[in-house]
Parts: sequence; structure tokens; C-alpha cells
Amino acid sequence: MASIQRQIRTAIITGPTGAIGMALCAKLLAEGVTVYAVTHPGSARAALLPQDARLHVVPCDAAELAALPELIPEKADAFFHFAWAHTIGPGRNDMPAQIENIRYTIAACRAAAQLGCQVFIGAGSQAEYGRVEGVLTAQTPCFPENGYGMAKLCAGQMSRVECQTLGMAHIWTRILSVYGPHDGPATMISGTIRKLLHGEKPALTAGIQQWDYLYAADAAAAFYALAVSGQDGRVYPLGSGTARPLKDYIEALRDAIDPALPLGLGEVPYGPLQVMHLQADTSALQEDTGWRPATPFEEGIRETIEWVRKETK
Amino acid sequence: MASIQRQIRTAIITGPTGAIGMALCAKLLAEGVTVYAVTHPGSARAALLPQDARLHVVPCDAAELAALPELIPEKADAFFHFAWAHTIGPGRNDMPAQIENIRYTIAACRAAAQLGCQVFIGAGSQAEYGRVEGVLTAQTPCFPENGYGMAKLCAGQMSRVECQTLGMAHIWTRILSVYGPHDGPATMISGTIRKLLHGEKPALTAGIQQWDYLYAADAAAAFYALAVSGQDGRVYPLGSGTARPLKDYIEALRDAIDPALPLGLGEVPYGPLQVMHLQADTSALQEDTGWRPATPFEEGIRETIEWVRKETK
Repeated sequence: MASIQRQIRTAIITGPTGAIGMALCAKLLAEGVTVYAVTHPGSARAALLPQDARLHVVPCDAAELAALPELIPEKADAFFHFAWAHTIGPGRNDMPAQIENIRYTIAACRAAAQLGCQVFIGAGSQAEYGRVEGVLTAQTPCFPENGYGMAKLCAGQMSRVECQTLGMAHIWTRILSVYGPHDGPATMISGTIRKLLHGEKPALTAGIQQWDYLYAADAAAAFYALAVSGQDGRVYPLGSGTARPLKDYIEALRDAIDPALPLGLGEVPYGPLQVMHLQADTSALQEDTGWRPATPFEEGIRETIEWVRKETK
Repeated sequence: MASIQRQIRTAIITGPTGAIGMALCAKLLAEGVTVYAVTHPGSARAALLPQDARLHVVPCDAAELAALPELIPEKADAFFHFAWAHTIGPGRNDMPAQIENIRYTIAACRAAAQLGCQVFIGAGSQAEYGRVEGVLTAQTPCFPENGYGMAKLCAGQMSRVECQTLGMAHIWTRILSVYGPHDGPATMISGTIRKLLHGEKPALTAGIQQWDYLYAADAAAAFYALAVSGQDGRVYPLGSGTARPLKDYIEALRDAIDPALPLGLGEVPYGPLQVMHLQADTSALQEDTGWRPATPFEEGIRETIEWVRKETK
């Protein structure tokens, strides 16, 4: 394991204010890395970034990433690209907007190379696979079903070739379900927490589908490990590597808030196209980097509930 | 077979001056269809389009396809989208240019819907599959290796969803090797003909790789048949459906020019990544439309040689 060892002293992150981005900023700072956090100009969430002398906020629109080399005053080692418009909702099928995301990814590669980065790490998605049952590997065929998944797939493929041309290592992840502080309010975990904290009974499916949930801080640790030891050109599905019935997660979540709260399990019927088992094959990730998920769901969910409590106060 | 029957009275073609586009214009006119041939403004090749009162040349840049509804004075039934920049050479990995091609495809869908088309037929490529050996089907996993193949794959996927949103049938083809009049000078067939006509001995591989060549007029007939009877949402690999050693094609081609001419078979070594067998599974195409390739290679190549002779005179 970990035959590659890149020294990461300075890193750039686009889209740093999402759940994984926030956790990655914290991880990088903890590892002694100087961080350039590229945020949308006027981002309200930028104020939530860790206050640290080694973290520099760089306001720059995704459409202007070509200008990054003028905005960042030093050479960097790793470039983490999380910025992506329209990750949820109907914008997932806004094709021109999704095509722009592909363009931004290529611009990010070029900026990374100009800034001297050794490695570009992209955040792909499970949506690249489309409707697949079972354990997802880098070799699992991709039949994406929405513009978001199609654009992520294309961005991952094109940025690989672009990085090869630029002489920079390329690593692409396909992220399954991640939860944690700074998660958007519309995700299953975050939405259910909000409902339970407000005394609402959440309407849910029976929850017997096997799901793979990864804590954001563990996902961030995987991203850092990939920057250090990930193999050039490789695609890594990113999840905990284990699946549990969705019901187990929901019950653990409810128990952490109040075991007496009622859950509406079974109130929502399964759709005809419901996927019943989804799990990341993390063997390549583990083999190449030594990474393992470190946070049991029961622990991660406590942190997440704590964060939602504070955020919604 | 052919349970769907769309009546095609008026059709629009972007990129009508390539080998398939030219043949499709002729086919449509022969079927009594009014044709709007959308050409690059200032295209020299536009003058080669059939001179026919029912064929209307519409100069319109690919970047301006959104304006098509203002340029075409009547409703249409089918939209054939062949326009694509950088199909050969290093531009295949010019990612921003390839991303533009995806955008043009979506703009083409929207223009088609505005113009009342029932069906959008896109020209994808074997390059979407990447390096695959054997018989290619719609289900064969795609691992494209260059920006061209990646963009074609993404354009095919996104335009499918876009057409669904627009309430228009969507048909995507993945074209293997097509030859015929109006072919570019750099293809294997066209290039070899030119060399032999000039008295040069072409340097070739041993030619034992099994290849699938389809005559442009047969490809055009398939496109027309798909507009009439192709199934919405389906991807059709497009080839003859049979494979022969490349050497057989080259020898037939040489024999049609002059059986005494020497061939440099075996003078070029195989690359380490040479694909040795490539063939389209045309069973879905045949089943849905009744189409069959009609032109034996020996006949198609005579027409092609005749055209190259005239063109290079």
C-alpha cells in the first residue's frame, strides 16, 4: 500500500463550503497544509470556513477559474475540485448549466497545472453510474440517467486526458452518500434530523434498502489520502465500503435525538425504480492509500445532529 | 419489425456535407422529403450539395443553432444532427471545443422541438466505446479514450434526456467505419485510394484485424429508416454488421484500381493497443426498421474510387 507519496504543503479547494469541502479544509489544516479556499464571490458560507492564518479565502466565480493563477500568490501541490452548480433539484437536468460545469472542470485542471500542482483530485458522483444495484467499482459500467451524472462522468473522463496532457496526476472519485455537518438541508439524513428536531414525524419508505453512508470527515480524510497516495488515472468509488438497511441509520439517528420519537417508516411506497442495494467497493482506495473510515455512524450522527441544532437555532 | 411509422415530409440536417450527410440528402430527396441543409456559413462544400428545388441550404454557424427556427420557414418532421467540430486529429482532445459540440447538440434539440420535429436523430461514434474488442451493442460499456468520444457519449446521453423533456423522440447512433464519396482525405480507405491513384505504395499493417465497413449510402438509408421507425430512447450501433480482415478490403480496393499495384501490407507494425476485431451488432436496427446494408464492398468501393478520381482531377 501507499507506494506513491506526494508531499502536500499547499492545496487549493474549489467548492470548499460543502460538507466534504469544510471537513477537508479542517483536515488539511490539521496536517499542516496551507489552504486556498476558492469560494463563490459573495458566498455567505465562506464565513463558516475555519478561521486560521493558513487558510486563505479566494473569491472567484467558477466561470473565472482561468484567472486563479493570478489570484493565488504561491505554487501549490494539490488541487481539489468540488465546485459544481446544480447538484440537486431540477437543475440536474439543466443541460447548458451542467455543460458549463464540465468546462469549469477543464479550466480547473489548467489553473492547477499553471499553479504547479502535482495532482488534481476531482469529485465525481454515484450519479455517473445511473441505476445500478450492488457494489460499485471503477469498472462498473456507467449509464447515467440525469444531466448531473452525465456531466460528472464527462468531466471526470475529460479532465483525466487533460491532466495527462498537462503532465499532472489525475484522481477521480465517485462519491456515494455522505452526511455530516454543513450538509445541505434537502438530503435524507439532514432533512430527517430537521423534521425530528421540529417534532415532525418523517414520512419514509420501509427503509430495507441497503445503503452506504460515509461521514464527511472520513470522506475528507480519503480525499487527503488520495492526494498523497492515489494512483494517477484511477477512479475511486467513495463510500464507507459497507451497507446497512436505511432503517438502521434512521433509527440510530432517531435514538440519538430521542428514542421515543415516532418514525413514519413504510409511509412512503417504494418507487418502481428504487435501488435496493448500493455500496462502494473501497478496496482500491484502501490498498492504494491505507485509508479506512474511522467514524461509526452512531458517532457521526451525534456530531451532525449537534451541528443542525446549532445551525437552526 | 417497424411497428413505429413516422411520416417524414420535411427534414433538417446539420453537417450535411460529410459522406453520410451527402448521401442522406440524396436519400431524402429520393423519398420525396423536403430538406433543409444547415451548413457552416461560407462552406465551400455546400456547393456540392444536390441541386434540387426541394433542398434548401441554410447557412448557420453551429454556435447559432438556437436561431434556426427563424431561418427555416416551415415546420419539419425529423432533425438529423451531424454537425461536429474536430472529428479527427489533435482537436479530438481539444476539450473546450469538444464541450462546445455538446452544447450545440442541446441547442439542436431545442431548435428541432421548436420547429415541430417528431424525432431527433444524432450521430454518435464508435469512439464512445473506447478500446473494445468484438461486437458492439447498445449495452456494451463505454470507456471513451479521447475528448471526441467523451463528448459524443455525453451529447448522446444529454440529448436523450433533453428530447424527453421536450416531448420529442430521440435516436442515437454509434457509427463505426463508413466510407464512400465525400469522405475526408485522411481516412484509411480514402487515403489508400489516393495513394494508389498517385502510384504510391501505401504502407499498411498486416491487415488481419477484422473490421466493419459500411457504405455511406447504406448508412444514410439506415438514418432515414431510423427517422421513420427507430425506437425512442434507443442507441443503435451503425455498421454493416459483418467484419472482414482489413486486408480483404484493401485488396478489393487495389483490385478495383489495378490488380498489379503493390501493397505495403505488414510494413507498419501493429501498435500495442491495436484492436483486432470490431463489428456492429445491427440486430436492433434491423428488427426495428427492416434496414439491411445493400451495397457490397466491391460495388461501394468502385463508386468511391470514381468519386476520388473526379475530385482529385
